[in-house]
Amino acid sequence: MMTDAPPRAWAEELDARDPLADVRDQFLISDPHLIYLDGNSLGRLPAATPEFLGAVVRDQWGGGLVRSWQEWIDWGHRLGDRLAEHVLGALPGEVTLADSTSVNLYKLAAAALDARAERGTIVLDAHDFPTNRYVVQGLADARKRSVLALHSDHDTGLDLDLLRSALDQDVALVVLSLVSYRSGALLDMAAVNQLARQAGALVLWDLSHAAGAIPISLAETGADLAVGCTYKYLNGGPGSPAFLYVRRDLHATLRQPIWGWFGQQDQFEMGQDYDPVERIDRFLVGTPPLLSLAAVDPALTVIEQAGLDRLRHKGTALGDLVIELARQWLVPLGFRLASPARAEQRGSHVSLAHPEAWRICQALARHADVVCDFRVPDRLRIGPCPAYTRFTDVWDALDRLRKLVAREEYRRLPAERARIT
Amino acid sequence: MMTDAPPRAWAEELDARDPLADVRDQFLISDPHLIYLDGNSLGRLPAATPEFLGAVVRDQWGGGLVRSWQEWIDWGHRLGDRLAEHVLGALPGEVTLADSTSVNLYKLAAAALDARAERGTIVLDAHDFPTNRYVVQGLADARKRSVLALHSDHDTGLDLDLLRSALDQDVALVVLSLVSYRSGALLDMAAVNQLARQAGALVLWDLSHAAGAIPISLAETGADLAVGCTYKYLNGGPGSPAFLYVRRDLHATLRQPIWGWFGQQDQFEMGQDYDPVERIDRFLVGTPPLLSLAAVDPALTVIEQAGLDRLRHKGTALGDLVIELARQWLVPLGFRLASPARAEQRGSHVSLAHPEAWRICQALARHADVVCDFRVPDRLRIGPCPAYTRFTDVWDALDRLRKLVAREEYRRLPAERARIT
Repeated sequence: MMTDAPPRAWAEELDARDPLADVRDQFLISDPHLIYLDGNSLGRLPAATPEFLGAVVRDQWGGGLVRSWQEWIDWGHRLGDRLAEHVLGALPGEVTLADSTSVNLYKLAAAALDARAERGTIVLDAHDFPTNRYVVQGLADARKRSVLALHSDHDTGLDLDLLRSALDQDVALVVLSLVSYRSGALLDMAAVNQLARQAGALVLWDLSHAAGAIPISLAETGADLAVGCTYKYLNGGPGSPAFLYVRRDLHATLRQPIWGWFGQQDQFEMGQDYDPVERIDRFLVGTPPLLSLAAVDPALTVIEQAGLDRLRHKGTALGDLVIELARQWLVPLGFRLASPARAEQRGSHVSLAHPEAWRICQALARHADVVCDFRVPDRLRIGPCPAYTRFTDVWDALDRLRKLVAREEYRRLPAERARIT
Repeated sequence: MMTDAPPRAWAEELDARDPLADVRDQFLISDPHLIYLDGNSLGRLPAATPEFLGAVVRDQWGGGLVRSWQEWIDWGHRLGDRLAEHVLGALPGEVTLADSTSVNLYKLAAAALDARAERGTIVLDAHDFPTNRYVVQGLADARKRSVLALHSDHDTGLDLDLLRSALDQDVALVVLSLVSYRSGALLDMAAVNQLARQAGALVLWDLSHAAGAIPISLAETGADLAVGCTYKYLNGGPGSPAFLYVRRDLHATLRQPIWGWFGQQDQFEMGQDYDPVERIDRFLVGTPPLLSLAAVDPALTVIEQAGLDRLRHKGTALGDLVIELARQWLVPLGFRLASPARAEQRGSHVSLAHPEAWRICQALARHADVVCDFRVPDRLRIGPCPAYTRFTDVWDALDRLRKLVAREEYRRLPAERARIT
């Protein structure tokens, strides 16, 4: 640990040596003064997206009209196979894109519960993202199961010993986020999958804060089920369709509750009774939002070219810089690190706790051109995105942050929180 | 009934007198020779859409980044309120846009069943669109209810006497399409709602083939629940998010099964337990596909300006012309009208049965530049769209059709159907 904060020249040096430096040019960055550290909420716009989407709209929709469905019908799978290969470490045919993360979580959790009908418990992390907890609560309520919410240190992530002790013969399903939306804590997927397998439970992973930032090995770790969103580190655009993964040997047996025509055998034969295909398609429901789906294509190309190992390498270095600067500059101003300190236990974002985090976050955006994120009750979430965040961005952002806090500029803002943060 | 087919000059005269003639200019029509009669599968591209969507992509996503969610978060409701006022005859706050039609149908049907827990039967039309039947089958299977599928003449639509006799005290829910996807048969919404109300059952309407073509009066007829898609007569683009309607007095009591954070009270407070808001939002789940949602906005403007009464008036005239020409030209060639003959019993499309409908449909597109639709087993679905289809389009299309069939040109194509029709 350094005794002084690294100077800006050090960040400049890191940028100069960054093999991913020119990936930033593959994004449209309209305001060069703005430092964007919220790509873990909504990733930036890839430079190729407007033209790609424009062609889909004008040529395929406007020109091809309904005939373009001949091509569109396979996009979910084509993008799914690319995600499987380059992002998720899954096999062809195990991933597709559809619906929202929440809806996919519902479908796969329900399918898992029905496949473990004799077991009464669903295990989750008490600190998991709200929608994951709510979806599980809803399913438990409808299916008369109980929810066991594990409470461990919010900032360092779920304690595996706690999980181990919870996993008995009554556990049907474990629902966990690979990277915590709040603290960025990264779980050991292989270890969790193994623990659950030994107990005969299925695991459903939410990969939203990991996909595109962390190399993931669904196949290698024997993962059962996963969902995740494509609009964070994958830069697919606001609300772009989520992915879902089901290990191939589970396709034949798992059955999800929303019996839609996109899951039907010979969909356009429109048979009288629902008879789901034995492919990943059985987890589809209705017509996908094609324009939002289309925007995932050029975005994924950027990530594929950058490569997950290089993105992860840079991501940990960016996170380490956040933490080092925070220790030197921000802890003395009343901040506390609310993320794992060690890079290998962390995703790509870092959380800092401060009692005035809400006002500081607002003031940063308004007065210092730094966009990061607030999470209840007192967290500032700093999300450098290795595809386009520079080391000097991190240095400058934290420099602006410390000056703003030192001058107490945020106190000019109302303390009450607005609806959206 | 005329004894000769109306001449082309007659269609030209109808176009000349058409008060909606210039609405066609509000669409991008890249191939003027192509006659598009499948707007009931995928509506045409409004001329304003590419620029509108381009600005959302470049300025709001690219420039505003995550901050644009401050505005985006309300788009589902804003568009829902516009749909309510101009298209659905509902009250403000009763309609929103989210997910696919199938997923919305699932949510609302499940909510209705749970609200009628003491009743064991779901009534539907045996000829309804597959996804509606499958979703209901799935819910019945999971909730141990039985499905009563009403069989009446496929082409003229559900017999209300049959429905009346089916509605006893055990019926929890009736699921029906206002306009049949195949025959175009139009049901009497007021009569159905009243019959169901008398029996204490809820009605869930699928308005997919009606919205934007038929004036709908959800409030006036006391409708309970409805869903429908925005990519047919509303021209929202491929897979644009579906709408859902829940009558206001049902908001407090109905509870849908997918407990996502978009339905949660104070969503960004991220409370521990799911506590749905008492607004239409409680039927939301996760993040909407924003780009696909955005495209509904300029499309809806076109429909609002045209006005549903005028669209309906023109739609019936277009349908009458299809039927008149079919009688004169096509019935002698082996076609049979497979839709209600009377305009007031029909939506905007007309179905014609022919044993070679599949090959004829393919040949029409390939050799005669006429795009219409095939539906199993033997239906040619002719869907003029009053916003952009001209009377001369209908005349020319049926003229090309009769010549193609008279020459048996379609026999050159393989008889086996491809995957997508």
